[in-house]
Amino acid sequence: MTIPAHETAGARIVVPVALEGRPYDIHIGRHQLCETAALIAAMAPGAKVALVTDESVAALHAPALEACLQQESITSTRITVPPGEATKSAAQLIALCDALLAAKIERDDLVIALGGGVVGDLTGFAAAVLRRGVRFVQMPTTLLAQVDSSVGGKTGINTSHGKNLIGAFHQPVLVIADTALLDTLSQREFKAGYAEVVKYGLIDDPAFFDWCEVNWSRIISGGPERDHAVAVACRAKAAIVARDEREEGDRALLNLGHTFAHALERLTNYDSTRLVHGEAVAIGLALAFRFSQRMGLCSGQDAVRVSRHLDAVGLPTTLQQVPGGAGTAQEIVAAMGQDKKVRRGVLTFILARGIGKAFIAHGVATEEVQAFVESEFAGESGTANASNAGRAR
Amino acid sequence: MTIPAHETAGARIVVPVALEGRPYDIHIGRHQLCETAALIAAMAPGAKVALVTDESVAALHAPALEACLQQESITSTRITVPPGEATKSAAQLIALCDALLAAKIERDDLVIALGGGVVGDLTGFAAAVLRRGVRFVQMPTTLLAQVDSSVGGKTGINTSHGKNLIGAFHQPVLVIADTALLDTLSQREFKAGYAEVVKYGLIDDPAFFDWCEVNWSRIISGGPERDHAVAVACRAKAAIVARDEREEGDRALLNLGHTFAHALERLTNYDSTRLVHGEAVAIGLALAFRFSQRMGLCSGQDAVRVSRHLDAVGLPTTLQQVPGGAGTAQEIVAAMGQDKKVRRGVLTFILARGIGKAFIAHGVATEEVQAFVESEFAGESGTANASNAGRAR
Repeated sequence: MTIPAHETAGARIVVPVALEGRPYDIHIGRHQLCETAALIAAMAPGAKVALVTDESVAALHAPALEACLQQESITSTRITVPPGEATKSAAQLIALCDALLAAKIERDDLVIALGGGVVGDLTGFAAAVLRRGVRFVQMPTTLLAQVDSSVGGKTGINTSHGKNLIGAFHQPVLVIADTALLDTLSQREFKAGYAEVVKYGLIDDPAFFDWCEVNWSRIISGGPERDHAVAVACRAKAAIVARDEREEGDRALLNLGHTFAHALERLTNYDSTRLVHGEAVAIGLALAFRFSQRMGLCSGQDAVRVSRHLDAVGLPTTLQQVPGGAGTAQEIVAAMGQDKKVRRGVLTFILARGIGKAFIAHGVATEEVQAFVESEFAGESGTANASNAGRAR
Repeated sequence: MTIPAHETAGARIVVPVALEGRPYDIHIGRHQLCETAALIAAMAPGAKVALVTDESVAALHAPALEACLQQESITSTRITVPPGEATKSAAQLIALCDALLAAKIERDDLVIALGGGVVGDLTGFAAAVLRRGVRFVQMPTTLLAQVDSSVGGKTGINTSHGKNLIGAFHQPVLVIADTALLDTLSQREFKAGYAEVVKYGLIDDPAFFDWCEVNWSRIISGGPERDHAVAVACRAKAAIVARDEREEGDRALLNLGHTFAHALERLTNYDSTRLVHGEAVAIGLALAFRFSQRMGLCSGQDAVRVSRHLDAVGLPTTLQQVPGGAGTAQEIVAAMGQDKKVRRGVLTFILARGIGKAFIAHGVATEEVQAFVESEFAGESGTANASNAGRAR
């Protein structure tokens, strides 16, 4: 697998999301702020813009984007929310809607989400419900958001009952993945996003997983490998979303590793000093493959290969690596019970018959899961990972 | 215009709402609680039910419905919200979502809204955003809700900036308009709902308006006229919603009288002791016709006929009849500026060329509106209504 010639030239890559009646494009490449303003001016002539961002991102990127908007004579109002997962709350949602109404954002105007998954999910949800729906543009500023949360229209907030339990499907009209914005990410944040990149290889693209094993350090350092990886991920997600927008079938495959991940995030109180989403996903991916191995579905070789790669990148792959502990096996299984993927009390899991061979397994017995988690705590997770225990980040 | 034979027999009337991909039926008739339970059991075998209602309605109808659900072996949890427009708040929305999550309502379960427009709008919105969308059934218990808010999927809450400014389009899977439930309504509440009934005649069905002029007292007292009126209204609304679900065109016709009404409700702080929605709509309808007359669009005869009929029923038709006052002309026009129907600062009004000849007028100048409202305050609204001033309810 090599990078196509037109991508190595550093040109912008456009990935269409073919949703019937509401198609949109994802633009991937470096330094696109002013192109974005031009696209918006063409898409919504005369529209006002509300630029929603968080305090950290605002300091880095908001003035440059605002200058580009001004060049296109677009009136914009900046709305800043606090950084961090706690911002995905009902209180922040209402405050944001109030701020958008105060900015007199109407049905024909545009809301831009400039930030990571938190800003994108919160802003997308606010755009979904403000005046029963206004248009919005995703400008993801983290790798995680560029390859996952900004594409596909899932928006939402967390509640005391769990993550994303209140939300809407609301598709953006445009996604701008400016890969230059990722240069300011910390190593930890970049690597966390990388877990979602490698996930696409694990689901159904073994050649991409092979390529990641060789090229991961160049994805992190930047250059055409980064843009290519983002494009592969977006194409994979766009294809799944186009055939199953509302997760009534295939889209659930994207949750590979996520049932475990959500439980771990819940048990660490969404405290990013302990565990960020991508780290939870890395552990979840490793667990999903070892669970598949235990169920006799997947070879031990593939399970080890998954953990070894994530480990090489510097991502956690075991429950022991959750700082402060992940709770007991019983607590983990109970935390899974509040997942949206639960139907009639039965867990739906994404399991794998090997790398690139993920599938949706309905009706996984909670006893099986609990026995597996207990075995993980007992340190039966294989030598490749045991060596990694206690060495989080 | 006479009632069709199959309606006079007291049989249930089924009005289909032909939305592509999400069609549903409205069942109109008396004593349908146990039929409803049977329909739900057939529609969602094994589903849990959350029954959302308000304290007043709960006392009247919840035990009977719960007994019917129990007969069908449907597990139900009752969730009660306070009665009144103030319940359409962000705080109540979040509390309701929390209660639905605590009741472990999942994607395959059902939420029933048993109540008036407040319960229907709040519950429908909660169902729209809970786990990004669960199914819900509308069981409207007021005339207003049966002929208007329960049909068409508009859900939402109010904010300090205005009414229904946060919400979603979320269609019910079933609407049960049990006309026997209306027997417990106060005369005031019934008449307020009647304003929305007569609106359908004013929009595009002059024969129905003629029929209403003759039969209105029988609609209030019950019997086949009531069921027929609800069915005509639902059919009219279903037809408009089917061709324009998201109000990008024709659906705006349903707002006849509502731009004025929303402003009046806002200026009376949604205080139902002063003005309920249907009363505001009655004034709004009379104003819309007199404004149309002033613009040279509609005959004075038609404008007078509209006011005279609403007056005969006992509904208010002038700004002078707003208890405590409706504010100044300037305040009324300013209050209109926060309406969802505003685009780029220009008001969209529903005007009429006569009874049954309503149309969407884009770009009505606010100066015109203000001059008209000033003339209304000056008592230039015609002898038919001047006699009614100060005699609210």
